[in-house]
This record gives sequence, structure tokens and C-alpha cells, in this order.
Amino acid sequence: MFEIFRLHLEKFIQINEEEFAAIIPFFKVIEVKRKENLLIEGAICKSHFFVLEGCLRKFFINDKGIEQTTEFAIENWWITDNIAYEHGLATSFYIQAVEKSEIMLIEREAQEKLLKKFPKMERYFRFIYQRAYAASQMRIKYLYDFTKEEFYEQLCKSQPEFVQRIPQYLIASFLGFSPEYLSEIRKKKRS
Amino acid sequence: MFEIFRLHLEKFIQINEEEFAAIIPFFKVIEVKRKENLLIEGAICKSHFFVLEGCLRKFFINDKGIEQTTEFAIENWWITDNIAYEHGLATSFYIQAVEKSEIMLIEREAQEKLLKKFPKMERYFRFIYQRAYAASQMRIKYLYDFTKEEFYEQLCKSQPEFVQRIPQYLIASFLGFSPEYLSEIRKKKRS
Repeated sequence: MFEIFRLHLEKFIQINEEEFAAIIPFFKVIEVKRKENLLIEGAICKSHFFVLEGCLRKFFINDKGIEQTTEFAIENWWITDNIAYEHGLATSFYIQAVEKSEIMLIEREAQEKLLKKFPKMERYFRFIYQRAYAASQMRIKYLYDFTKEEFYEQLCKSQPEFVQRIPQYLIASFLGFSPEYLSEIRKKKRS
Repeated sequence: MFEIFRLHLEKFIQINEEEFAAIIPFFKVIEVKRKENLLIEGAICKSHFFVLEGCLRKFFINDKGIEQTTEFAIENWWITDNIAYEHGLATSFYIQAVEKSEIMLIEREAQEKLLKKFPKMERYFRFIYQRAYAASQMRIKYLYDFTKEEFYEQLCKSQPEFVQRIPQYLIASFLGFSPEYLSEIRKKKRS
């Protein structure tokens, strides 16, 4: 169950059996059903989620009452509302399972204790945040630079399995399309 | 000169005189003139910049030949093209001084050596990236949720000194406005 996390850790830091065994109790593992919420708007954001298997998405409900997806996390990705998590605040986001998923989570106080006890985990999380930040910088560039159609093209090219795996109405929500409009683009692409 | 950096470090980690003296040689300090480039499109991104005094901005040139500003950094902010920096790649961005600035920089190999020699710097950079990532997640939410006018309102409310300090044509470039359109909005706001 933790094997995927261990392999992920070992991409960034060296860790032995004993250390890994001591690290694991800081985390919890939960199973969530499709469409089950792990976080809802207005709740205090206490947890940082790592996908062992499955897929989560983060969204907010805009003032037209529409769910706007801003982020997905598949295997090996961390996801939370980082500002609310760091400061123990209420969130304006939802985090929901896209598929039946197995999720590892850590709470803020436990994460702080883990980092104090195992300083090498600072290195691991430094890499996690560094890469997540770098990816979100590119995402911001795309939001400025690409039309929605171009962003979809880019997504199909760079993450083909992802586009296959995620339900189309969620891809549409991520791109800021209506599902109908995405369906038109896909028809155009095939023809 | 390094005092601002020392105070910034001490917000996140404890560091004594001796350690600070040993850390400083990993960095260089440069002075840049207004509009001087620290990074240009196509160049290998080797450096991570910290603003001691002044202001930098990051932009790319879109296919209409227009400069699109995606990020600013004032005192106490780090800025680079993080994907290109981590992997030693050519960048698609420019980083340019908005004002005459005093900049501290570190190169990738030096940063890696620093982190190896002073593991507590992992904690510092973990916080830097964590906060930068959290801020960019909110930025992405705003890009989805706000009209350009609302984004400008939000900026005026949350960062009033920043809006005063940065030339209006650059605020316009950051918001994806024409300078004329920003000027119209400001007139409307005043009336």
C-alpha cells in the first residue's frame, strides 16, 4: 500500500527500512468513493493529500453556482489548499474524488513534527513544492498565452493518458468550457 | 547589504553569525539598472534571484509580439523560471529590472552545494517554494474567477503600495489589459 509512496520518496531522498517504518505512522490512509468530498468550502483545511491510487480534483463554486475545477491530482501527486493548510484557515475550495481512490494524508501538526524529527523530509517537501510551483508557473503562462482550444491541444499532447482517463465534463470544467463546447472541439479535431 | 536576507532567513530558520558568514559566499550580489535584463528568452536559466532592493518582473513575448508580464518580485521575493532553473534548460521568459535594483543571486550548482552543506537551508527553501506555490494557486483561482476589472480591484485592495509603485503600463501588462483600458478603469474608479 505504501510502496508507491516509498518509491516516490526515493526519487528525491535516500531512506532506509528503519526510517521509512518510523515515517509511516505520521500518515493515515483512507479509501474514498467516487464523488466523495475530502474537503468542502468553509471547512478548516487540516490535511495534505497524497494519491496512492485514483484521482482527486480541486474546485470552487463560482458566483454563477458553477463548479470550476482548478487542479487534478493522480498517483504520486500531493494536493491541498496550501494557504488554508499552512495557516489553519477555512478553505474556499472543495477536494473531491474523481474515481474510487486510495489516499494517504498527513495533518499539519503531524507534518511539522515529521519535518522536525526527520530533517531529510524537508528536502523531500522542498522538491514537492518546488516542482508544484514550477508547474503552476507554466500553467499561469498558458492561461495568459493560450486560447482555451490551444490549452486543450496542449493538454492532449502533453498528458494523453490524463485526457483519456478524466471524464470529459471535468476536463471541460478545468478548461473553463461548457461540456457542449468541448464536445464540438473534439468533433472538429476528429474530422 | 545582506541584512535584508538575514532577516528573511530568520523568519523561517534559526541561524547564528558563523553559519550566516559561511552561507553568504554561495551568493553573488549585482546591481542592475532600470530595464536591464537578468534573463532573456532562449538563454539557459542558471540563476535564482532574490531582491534586496528594487523590483524585477518576469514576462514572455507572445505571438503578437506583445510583452506579457506574469510575475513581479519586490524586496524579499525570489524569482526565476523554475522549470528551466531546476533542469538547466533554455527559458521562454525574460526577467527584467523595473527599477534600479540590488539583486542577490545563486546559481543552481551553488544552491545544491549550499543545501548539502547546510540542510537547514532545505527548510528555508521548502517554505519559500511552499508559499510561492500557495500564492500561485490563488492566482490561478483569480484568473478563473475574476474578470480583469475584479482582478485589478483585488490587487488595489490587497497590494496598494505595489499598485502605487509599479508603472501603470506594467500593471496593465500583468492584468492582460491595454494601458488605455486600465486608464479608463482608473478614471471610472475615481469618478
